[in-house]
Amino acid sequence: MGKLPKNVGEIGEFPLIDRIRNILPVCRNKDLLVGIGDDAAVVRLDERRALLVTCDIQVEGRHFRLDRTTPYRVGRRAMAVNLSDIASMGGKPTYALVSLGLPADFSVESYDRLFEGMRDELLPHRASIIGGNLARTKDCLIVDVTLMGEADPSRVLTRGGARVGDRIFVTGHLGASGAGFQALKAFGKRVPGKYREMVNRHVLPIPRVELGRRISRSGVASAMIDLSDGVAGDLHHVCVRSGVGAEIREDLLPLPERIGEIARKSGKSVLELALHSGEDYELLFTVPPGVSARKIRSLPGSSGVPVTEIGRIVPREEGYRLVDSRGKKRPLTPAGWDHFRRTEG
Amino acid sequence: MGKLPKNVGEIGEFPLIDRIRNILPVCRNKDLLVGIGDDAAVVRLDERRALLVTCDIQVEGRHFRLDRTTPYRVGRRAMAVNLSDIASMGGKPTYALVSLGLPADFSVESYDRLFEGMRDELLPHRASIIGGNLARTKDCLIVDVTLMGEADPSRVLTRGGARVGDRIFVTGHLGASGAGFQALKAFGKRVPGKYREMVNRHVLPIPRVELGRRISRSGVASAMIDLSDGVAGDLHHVCVRSGVGAEIREDLLPLPERIGEIARKSGKSVLELALHSGEDYELLFTVPPGVSARKIRSLPGSSGVPVTEIGRIVPREEGYRLVDSRGKKRPLTPAGWDHFRRTEG
Repeated sequence: MGKLPKNVGEIGEFPLIDRIRNILPVCRNKDLLVGIGDDAAVVRLDERRALLVTCDIQVEGRHFRLDRTTPYRVGRRAMAVNLSDIASMGGKPTYALVSLGLPADFSVESYDRLFEGMRDELLPHRASIIGGNLARTKDCLIVDVTLMGEADPSRVLTRGGARVGDRIFVTGHLGASGAGFQALKAFGKRVPGKYREMVNRHVLPIPRVELGRRISRSGVASAMIDLSDGVAGDLHHVCVRSGVGAEIREDLLPLPERIGEIARKSGKSVLELALHSGEDYELLFTVPPGVSARKIRSLPGSSGVPVTEIGRIVPREEGYRLVDSRGKKRPLTPAGWDHFRRTEG
Repeated sequence: MGKLPKNVGEIGEFPLIDRIRNILPVCRNKDLLVGIGDDAAVVRLDERRALLVTCDIQVEGRHFRLDRTTPYRVGRRAMAVNLSDIASMGGKPTYALVSLGLPADFSVESYDRLFEGMRDELLPHRASIIGGNLARTKDCLIVDVTLMGEADPSRVLTRGGARVGDRIFVTGHLGASGAGFQALKAFGKRVPGKYREMVNRHVLPIPRVELGRRISRSGVASAMIDLSDGVAGDLHHVCVRSGVGAEIREDLLPLPERIGEIARKSGKSVLELALHSGEDYELLFTVPPGVSARKIRSLPGSSGVPVTEIGRIVPREEGYRLVDSRGKKRPLTPAGWDHFRRTEG
């Protein structure tokens, strides 16, 4: 028998979340549609409405560094990652609460910019901050946002609905944020313009709120998740929750332009960036066989965001695999960014 | 003109909250019944139901010290202070989300105890944890709880409903938590048994959830708030929001037994402990004239918690005052525990 881990630092985020499920009593409540373990919790309000609620805590030095970004961007980002969680359930964001931990020497101007960032990120969705709480910390900024949303209970998409034979789709491009991070590391403030787009995606993720709602309303999807940990990590969550396996086709992965140049520069492979680097905040969803190509093509609407098929759901016994361009299959490591344990994905 | 404050440490919690109101756009939404600035936000769900939501961030070294308490108690306390906010609006607690910031060397056992504490505090109210988020911090434990609740929208009590002539009531005793804190400081772990009750009230507040609901349902109250900052500070919030003044009668304050002994021992006055020491988590509510004594007497039900009249609401021009036993009036300082700026109330 191995040694039992003694400290939380020795085990990852997901085993820690599993422990909570063992401690808490089973909640026997027919209105709780989704509890711990998905992108947001879902509570039925009535026949037509469900309440979604999610939270995300961002810690200075862990999720952001104030010497590399601005308080305004920290605010936008803190809200964006929560919007992405509501988007992945097919919800419409409504109200936010903000808990801040502030060091005493945090400037009042930075404080204002932080809230302006959160406000600006919510504005296009007509969502607003309705409450919160402030506390002082010794030396680091903590931004914890709770975001609520609304959805049709019959249209809510979870991680648990994927079935064998379903096709797997992603929005946007994979690895853009990770490549942007590498570009920043390599070039610092003098990142060449041609890599700007990737850097922007790292600095300020674009939550796919409208697209998530369109996918949910269209009724074509069986499961959905947002890509915060890298597609290899997040698709694995869908597989575990759905009790299935998956195959991803390497040649189908939608890559951002010039990701190859950044990969060479940073000594990482393109595949590593696309599969394992986190924080793209795109959506991954599964679609049962038989849904028409026309229906899939219509999903992006006027957004211009590509929707790309990257693989399919297989029986659990067939495992979790990557298929290369010659058809050769090898195991896919679910490792992605672990926001809790590791420092870099 | 005075120098403008540069850092958040130079201004208190409430001016910082006011800044947010100026930054955020006015939310024109008929369903948002109460926004920033009360104990919880209130959103109308339908004719008979309103959603309440509140959050409270507790920081190690600021709100608790792990060498003076246990992870189990930190968990109970973090939940209790949120339950108190739902209680003060007259709500029934339903669901909680928990965001944790954990240092890597936090033990897995402490982690389990923390969640057991939160679970045990929620159990009597049949409320449950349905989601959350984990992040690593450099060196301090952060516990941020978001708690939701439900109430009849026509019965929700806010800080803003007090009117001139209303009588002011409080539940329980004032200053128990503050005296308990002083007893701990004076005696350390060898606190004499006769002071145990006050120490317990400091270590583990008892949120008045049932009593808050009874007060709300009875329809007798015009405004309500929970006492987290000391009655002098919290009643002042009611006055500001309601546009009124108030008079508190010194001889009516319900004091815990033996608070005088602790006051002498700690070099503080009984009045200081009763008015300005925070974290009693009792309820303060106002009652319009004409409500019968019988109705007031019936409020505690079988709880045994005393409900005591301590003063009355006066016109704003008459100020905010304390009346001593000889009828002499003097200004009451609204200063209480500022969770943001100061280190001790």
